[in-house]
Amino acid sequence: METKFTFAKTIIREAGQFIRSAMAEKLKIEEKTQFDDLVTNLDKAAQDLLIAKIKSAYPKDNVMAEENGVRHPITDGHVWILDPIDGTVNFIVQGENFAVMIAYYEDGVGRFGLIYDVIKDVLYAGGGQFDVYANDKKMLPYQDKPFNRSLISANSSMFAENVHGIRDLARQTLGVRIYGGAGISMSQVMSGRLLAYFSFIQPWDYAAAFIMGEKLGYQLLTLDGQTPDFKNRQMIMFVPKQKLKAIKQFIK
Amino acid sequence: METKFTFAKTIIREAGQFIRSAMAEKLKIEEKTQFDDLVTNLDKAAQDLLIAKIKSAYPKDNVMAEENGVRHPITDGHVWILDPIDGTVNFIVQGENFAVMIAYYEDGVGRFGLIYDVIKDVLYAGGGQFDVYANDKKMLPYQDKPFNRSLISANSSMFAENVHGIRDLARQTLGVRIYGGAGISMSQVMSGRLLAYFSFIQPWDYAAAFIMGEKLGYQLLTLDGQTPDFKNRQMIMFVPKQKLKAIKQFIK
Repeated sequence: METKFTFAKTIIREAGQFIRSAMAEKLKIEEKTQFDDLVTNLDKAAQDLLIAKIKSAYPKDNVMAEENGVRHPITDGHVWILDPIDGTVNFIVQGENFAVMIAYYEDGVGRFGLIYDVIKDVLYAGGGQFDVYANDKKMLPYQDKPFNRSLISANSSMFAENVHGIRDLARQTLGVRIYGGAGISMSQVMSGRLLAYFSFIQPWDYAAAFIMGEKLGYQLLTLDGQTPDFKNRQMIMFVPKQKLKAIKQFIK
Repeated sequence: METKFTFAKTIIREAGQFIRSAMAEKLKIEEKTQFDDLVTNLDKAAQDLLIAKIKSAYPKDNVMAEENGVRHPITDGHVWILDPIDGTVNFIVQGENFAVMIAYYEDGVGRFGLIYDVIKDVLYAGGGQFDVYANDKKMLPYQDKPFNRSLISANSSMFAENVHGIRDLARQTLGVRIYGGAGISMSQVMSGRLLAYFSFIQPWDYAAAFIMGEKLGYQLLTLDGQTPDFKNRQMIMFVPKQKLKAIKQFIK
């Protein structure tokens, strides 16, 4: 497992380096399901690069990935879950605040996760048998703070429409921050800068944080408190375990 | 004016350095008007430091500043407008994403403005007769982009409640980002990462961006299209001049 984890840290930084070099060129942008659901040539190229490296090193392993319908189920064998550029809108508009994400599962059991903030050059990696690090710094487990000394983050529509009581919870806190991109947002939760994150996302958006968060005292659940299905887009929350009961007073 | 501008760049970095050093110690936090309107001992100490330096160098100049009711009107003589820590909630909870801000006015005419992102160590400074720089890099004027390739930022309640049509505008764009703190947010507008910013803020929150933005093609207006009064807390927008007409189709 040590070897695979080291391999994952190497290829995620290579993918990040590829994106940083290539983003100076003009992007080719396409709409997927609607005008604000975008993909670029670099999302696809970075995914192809990651898959090629995985298939070359581990020919029998399988892949679930965001682009091009690569959808091997996580419960079946050795599965790498890839999000080549998480936060594509930020990538296109801001040129920052996006991440490459990798998670590795064996027969549905999470072994390690990685979130690489490409422009800040911070790699969050660990989970399973591995401690979680932000680059060379070991990350601390959740340190308890009251709601009135905390900030939360949420999908903007879910916040505005108070879906499942998200805005009711926000009112107990110092407010809401919206950064765009699940990976960046959940790395901020694990860093202690946000108490919790609420969104409507896909398996490749949460697979890495699911594993890493577990190690740091966080839980990734659907908004009705279940384990997500790793198949469909679902409403999820990423919250400190020791705050779950207090959060459930508002999130219903 | 050159001398005063240089002086301002020196003292704002000194205030930032003071905050960076002192924030390792435990903060004393007080509530002002309500539980989420906070001030720390360092907001006050940084303001005192800035005022002492200004009064020592320019004894006849006057000050309007956030803390302790320092409220000289901008229309009367040489006036420094200070926000010692803009984004105090971010400062307390996240230890980043806050700014020191200085603006300098002569009889109501803006001469230069400065926004210092303390943790990123980026000083945005200029306006009036001075080009605007982000550290050593000259900032470019607004480059036109369509709404569907842009992001906006807003006060979270004003966004959620569609105040003056902010959410209607957001729906034309790729979405909303909420960073907390007027200074950080408006520096992101001037950097081209956000199209526009909407909030309910005080003169010391917008005085610097008002001057710097003018030089880069942005306008700071109340939501009904007037020049803000530099006296009271008002709902404002910070928008590209060449997009004002298109924005006014939604912001009413």
